[in-house]
Amino acid sequence: MKKAITTGHRDREIELVARLSQAIPSIGHIGNSASLITGVGDDAAVLRHSPRSDWVISCDSSLEGVHFQSDYPADSIGYKSLARATSDLAAMGAQPLYFLLALALPAAKTGKWLRCFALGMSRAAREFHSFLIGGDISKSASVTICIFVLGETPSGLAIPRSGARPGDLIFVTGKLGAAQLGLEIVLRGWSRQSSPKRYLYPHFYPQVPVYLAQALARQRIPSAMMDVSDGLSTDLARLCAASGVGARIRADALPSVQVPAALLARGIDPLALALHGGEDYGLLFTAPRKDAQRLRHIRRDAPITQIGEITSTRKIVLIHRDGRSSSLPSKGWNPFGK
Amino acid sequence: MKKAITTGHRDREIELVARLSQAIPSIGHIGNSASLITGVGDDAAVLRHSPRSDWVISCDSSLEGVHFQSDYPADSIGYKSLARATSDLAAMGAQPLYFLLALALPAAKTGKWLRCFALGMSRAAREFHSFLIGGDISKSASVTICIFVLGETPSGLAIPRSGARPGDLIFVTGKLGAAQLGLEIVLRGWSRQSSPKRYLYPHFYPQVPVYLAQALARQRIPSAMMDVSDGLSTDLARLCAASGVGARIRADALPSVQVPAALLARGIDPLALALHGGEDYGLLFTAPRKDAQRLRHIRRDAPITQIGEITSTRKIVLIHRDGRSSSLPSKGWNPFGK
Repeated sequence: MKKAITTGHRDREIELVARLSQAIPSIGHIGNSASLITGVGDDAAVLRHSPRSDWVISCDSSLEGVHFQSDYPADSIGYKSLARATSDLAAMGAQPLYFLLALALPAAKTGKWLRCFALGMSRAAREFHSFLIGGDISKSASVTICIFVLGETPSGLAIPRSGARPGDLIFVTGKLGAAQLGLEIVLRGWSRQSSPKRYLYPHFYPQVPVYLAQALARQRIPSAMMDVSDGLSTDLARLCAASGVGARIRADALPSVQVPAALLARGIDPLALALHGGEDYGLLFTAPRKDAQRLRHIRRDAPITQIGEITSTRKIVLIHRDGRSSSLPSKGWNPFGK
Repeated sequence: MKKAITTGHRDREIELVARLSQAIPSIGHIGNSASLITGVGDDAAVLRHSPRSDWVISCDSSLEGVHFQSDYPADSIGYKSLARATSDLAAMGAQPLYFLLALALPAAKTGKWLRCFALGMSRAAREFHSFLIGGDISKSASVTICIFVLGETPSGLAIPRSGARPGDLIFVTGKLGAAQLGLEIVLRGWSRQSSPKRYLYPHFYPQVPVYLAQALARQRIPSAMMDVSDGLSTDLARLCAASGVGARIRADALPSVQVPAALLARGIDPLALALHGGEDYGLLFTAPRKDAQRLRHIRRDAPITQIGEITSTRKIVLIHRDGRSSSLPSKGWNPFGK
């Protein structure tokens, strides 16, 4: 199970990816192949499809006991597993086209459970205009879902993590911490009590702004973009590391989730949720100041909020509401953190 | 764990795939999309890449406790998981290009185990000339590997399962039952005894004839092709169902694995291994008699054996060594079989 927010950590996931891609013949950024444009290290790989378009591909796993519990609604597991994978396409500004599903499940779940799972996945597929074109089914003791997604961008328009430059403004879409709030409610057993369903919804059915992401890419506004999957503090650090820059963000600018008074009283901190909560699947992007002015013409399916700016210091700094500033540790989702 | 060979069964995996692709917006055979040529229902999906080439994509899972045991050599798990996925590309006659790896593993396996796993996968990647271009790492209680593979064929040359016609000859490559023999040795605990390593090798490190498959496709010899992953009796039934035909094969023609006398004495039956043993990852293909003559000019990295011919009866018939014939039930690997 994804855990509540804990202490700061090294980014072990990035380290493991780096180790694997050193050990296995692999291709990273800056195409050293005829058709590969971006490889290991970004949200998705980018391949030249035709002179007019590029293909963007990624894969994502959703595992019982890690990303969801066995008693979660089956339709939310179907919906969210496709949404999570599709979010990597949105992060590049791509239009989803097709997906493959590798599903492993116990025989006992091949009846009603599988029907509900398929209904949820179906709803996500219709929202994203993405079609199932293949996959693989195995039997296993627990449910394992791996989804491969393929999308398309106009040639050269896929947005990498690595283009942020000092002076660029930093933006996020949607509310920060909404999915983590839902998870906290589930983890603490409050979901069986009186918490309104709407607080759980962003955890079970995250909304992925695929059309906003494409509009941003088509207008060539973002200098760098990724999805906020592991929490702002962790993902912003990754974007800055990939771009070789730092960032300064303002606590009072963060579009934090609204926490009901009853949960505030129980110690839920909206700022911690916004800074470190994972799985919102909104966009984190940067834009030069002059290009950011064009944001007001973008047709949006989620609000866009400016939260700070890129610096040349290589540090991630948080300016608190009282004007103090401090270094912002990565405290988001970090499965192998110590 | 994949089980020893059991009784005949309905093909529940094919049923589940059909149910899922009815429930989820999906695309099957006969492109109803600008770029999709083959979707759900074959070894891999085929997409039009350019006027000159098509892309072939597939994915495959390897799960601890299902496809391998936790005490298997880590390098064999890395090797075989990529070989299994790449076999779906070979089945279409495609040249592997790139792969994505979604890996979930316990923190305790991120050290030496992961290094050995990467070494094995690396060896497979070099053999297939395939490059890692992305993926995803999660933490989980047991090892879960999902690999997405992308390959290429000259435009229109990907070989489907569905093209077999009555009168076509049926061929397989390599030895049948070799991987199952290795698995039986492991399952019965004989691997700790004196069984020579070479009997285990096809189970741990299956050889995928990717270059032979491409040569066959380029020469346009096969009318239908797939890989033998779940056992000849099951996979031949699938090829025949997709093509709307039947088949007649001869027991004395099967290129059965050689079983050492000590294991023959313990009841291991080479014919049962050849008919129903899974995971050989050789090719099963059909060809019109006139095209089959050109097989002798094919440069091969595995032997090719004619085992029978396609009939119009929709039945799968085995001709025994004594001349009797009987219906051949599907007794290969069938995870959800009852």
